[in-house]
Amino acid sequence: MNGDTAMATEVARPHEVVIVGAGFGGLAAARGLAGAPVHVTIIDRKNHHLFQPLLYQVATAGVSPADVAVPIRSLFRNQKNATILMDTVVDVDVDAGMVRGERADHPFDTLILATGSEYSYFGHDDWRPHAPSLKSLKDALDIREKVLLAFEYAETTDDAAERERLMTFVIVGGGATGVELAGALAELAKKALARDFRHIVPREAEIILLEAGPSLLSGFPPKLTDFARRALTKLGVTVHLNTAVDQVDGYGVTLQDGRTIPAANILWAAGTRAPAVGDWLGAGTDRQGRVIVAPDLTVPGHPNIFVIGDAASYAPEGGKPVPAVAPVAKQQGAHLAKVIRDRLDAASRPRPFRYRDDGMLATIGRHAAVANLRWIKMAGWFAWMFWGLIHIYFLIGARNRMMVFVNWVWAYFTYGLGARLITRSSVMATEDKRKRERPAA
Amino acid sequence: MNGDTAMATEVARPHEVVIVGAGFGGLAAARGLAGAPVHVTIIDRKNHHLFQPLLYQVATAGVSPADVAVPIRSLFRNQKNATILMDTVVDVDVDAGMVRGERADHPFDTLILATGSEYSYFGHDDWRPHAPSLKSLKDALDIREKVLLAFEYAETTDDAAERERLMTFVIVGGGATGVELAGALAELAKKALARDFRHIVPREAEIILLEAGPSLLSGFPPKLTDFARRALTKLGVTVHLNTAVDQVDGYGVTLQDGRTIPAANILWAAGTRAPAVGDWLGAGTDRQGRVIVAPDLTVPGHPNIFVIGDAASYAPEGGKPVPAVAPVAKQQGAHLAKVIRDRLDAASRPRPFRYRDDGMLATIGRHAAVANLRWIKMAGWFAWMFWGLIHIYFLIGARNRMMVFVNWVWAYFTYGLGARLITRSSVMATEDKRKRERPAA
Repeated sequence: MNGDTAMATEVARPHEVVIVGAGFGGLAAARGLAGAPVHVTIIDRKNHHLFQPLLYQVATAGVSPADVAVPIRSLFRNQKNATILMDTVVDVDVDAGMVRGERADHPFDTLILATGSEYSYFGHDDWRPHAPSLKSLKDALDIREKVLLAFEYAETTDDAAERERLMTFVIVGGGATGVELAGALAELAKKALARDFRHIVPREAEIILLEAGPSLLSGFPPKLTDFARRALTKLGVTVHLNTAVDQVDGYGVTLQDGRTIPAANILWAAGTRAPAVGDWLGAGTDRQGRVIVAPDLTVPGHPNIFVIGDAASYAPEGGKPVPAVAPVAKQQGAHLAKVIRDRLDAASRPRPFRYRDDGMLATIGRHAAVANLRWIKMAGWFAWMFWGLIHIYFLIGARNRMMVFVNWVWAYFTYGLGARLITRSSVMATEDKRKRERPAA
Repeated sequence: MNGDTAMATEVARPHEVVIVGAGFGGLAAARGLAGAPVHVTIIDRKNHHLFQPLLYQVATAGVSPADVAVPIRSLFRNQKNATILMDTVVDVDVDAGMVRGERADHPFDTLILATGSEYSYFGHDDWRPHAPSLKSLKDALDIREKVLLAFEYAETTDDAAERERLMTFVIVGGGATGVELAGALAELAKKALARDFRHIVPREAEIILLEAGPSLLSGFPPKLTDFARRALTKLGVTVHLNTAVDQVDGYGVTLQDGRTIPAANILWAAGTRAPAVGDWLGAGTDRQGRVIVAPDLTVPGHPNIFVIGDAASYAPEGGKPVPAVAPVAKQQGAHLAKVIRDRLDAASRPRPFRYRDDGMLATIGRHAAVANLRWIKMAGWFAWMFWGLIHIYFLIGARNRMMVFVNWVWAYFTYGLGARLITRSSVMATEDKRKRERPAA
């Protein structure tokens, strides 16, 4: 009798699916498993899901962190088969079926790694402190403080060269994030802050966008990238194409042609790499460190381990690898949930992943955007409205949708951006010491 | 001719009023000088004015920083005679008429010091890292992260004693801030987070309010302090009166009767002291370090230097010192603006300050408050509604008023608090190492 009970208990332990990372991919997989006869454990370093596409607006003081992020727990409050754990994964024991975290070990039957990507400094990690990139809320808040402090310091300094350096902003990388940052910074300086200072003229701030390749927004058709360049120029951004960076430090940026741009504000939006997932699994990776996965998104040799989103390198048979964008991660996550449900039904028919490309969007300030959609290409104000609607629609959580909408409408008509706060004085002290690092280079 | 021009230029330099601190007192003084034939320089370490009375709601994840703070610059955008400088004052040269800042020196004809107060640890500054207090946005964000992380860690630990310690919150000091923090923490644990976890039961969190004196909210009449105590108890807060703290460290709190409360979350809301203003001026101070000012708020011996708000000790002739509360600072600032205008008119009649006491308010969670007003005393739900209206009314900036209102209405009906974000992972690492500091004490 006792033996029977023990056995019954054992049999009743549900299939354990561990999902590492609560980005777009991880969330989609977890939600797709709602009600399935499995237990889902979602592990993330952070306590929130971040709506990355709007993160640049936090960095440029357009919206607050709470407008673009939502606690993971609150998203799964009603999904009874899901547990959320805040932990940092440091390794995976493939043979033991165990994810190793800093705080605990987490056994799995099926593992989904959806850990995303980070910015790569092309082997120059020493550039990172001088040229922060934009991946987390902390990054966004750090950048916001740096940018706002630059104007404050410019207002108090008597040194004309230093004032100019403080009011020079260089964005490295002309992809969607770089274009969006440049546009938002231009509007911050030229519109929102225009009347706030007495000694400096924020309108005179210089915003420089550097792109190593021959066009902005690679992947968009030439008509739209041309439009984006013209729209940025009209906002007062200086766009340099075919311009690679040779050196970055606390004083400024040196280009490969030898020119130096003294700049106190350098933002990095170029090149990505995937974190340590390949090492954890001992799996093959591509040049950016992304794990090369099979057509069904499994890791070769490990049918119960999947990698999705930015951490995976997936190409349909005979096709090009899919881009590292949110819709891919979402579709892969949703696909995996179906694959896992199939397997539980013992219907282990192959189900290769297929990406449905609905197009891409990028916005340039608050009056223009470019949209390269499946059936239509658009540029200008109408594309911008479309961009806004789409982004509010996809924002997770009704409160976030409402707050971002209110914030945007308010900011649109008043330019009185509501999130221009410098909350951590420590940054001030650091900056202050750093500011004259390279008196003559 | 040249001499004449030079003279005219010299005469035209307006009277320079330097205001240090953009809290309630500094703002009121600066606004009162709008349009006056003076130039006003407002110097603050931060770039924002903070609506302190709602700061506890940032610390308890009720509202976002941007809801309770507003950039100082945006408040003075249209006041042409005002300049804002972000700088940290380190000294005042009384004879030279110069404020010494970290970034620059600032000459003055008239000086208003409105630097506020900070929390005092009664000579135990080593308690500060273990028992943060609530003065700045940074403090509030640090406390928010600490509180939210405690629940996250409790969810992942297998150690029952550690889990209990992580879910114990001790608030030291039963004044308005302590009472408001305790009430808000109780609602966070018992309502907002109630269904978010799988292993722990947030409702079981223990919230303990320690007060060294015989009653909460000293200064309120006994009927109202009794009501506050009962209302807190109903929310699940354990209130200990006549209970002084002997020792605070990374493990918990030891009381003067020898008992130890293991607690990962200790918040300090007891005792204040004024910063270094007395030292800067070489002026006499009271026990809390506040500068003792004359009836016209000048510093004795320095008719052109005023100290107001929490940094000043002011008593009307033959009366008791006025309390260190926002309405006093506001009224003193507005009064000074009149004094300075009088002097410019050469009408140097004495104008002693008189405090008009309109009463005090404190809230207990989201259903009750106590109000000790000039003409009426109230306790309960109606007092809470009154508290809400008053606080929204006094919030600076139309956007802040609207956003806090929307946030409150939303949170009131859903308990789905929208600001539960942990943005800085560094806190996690620190906490993690600290957590088992005192295995056996």
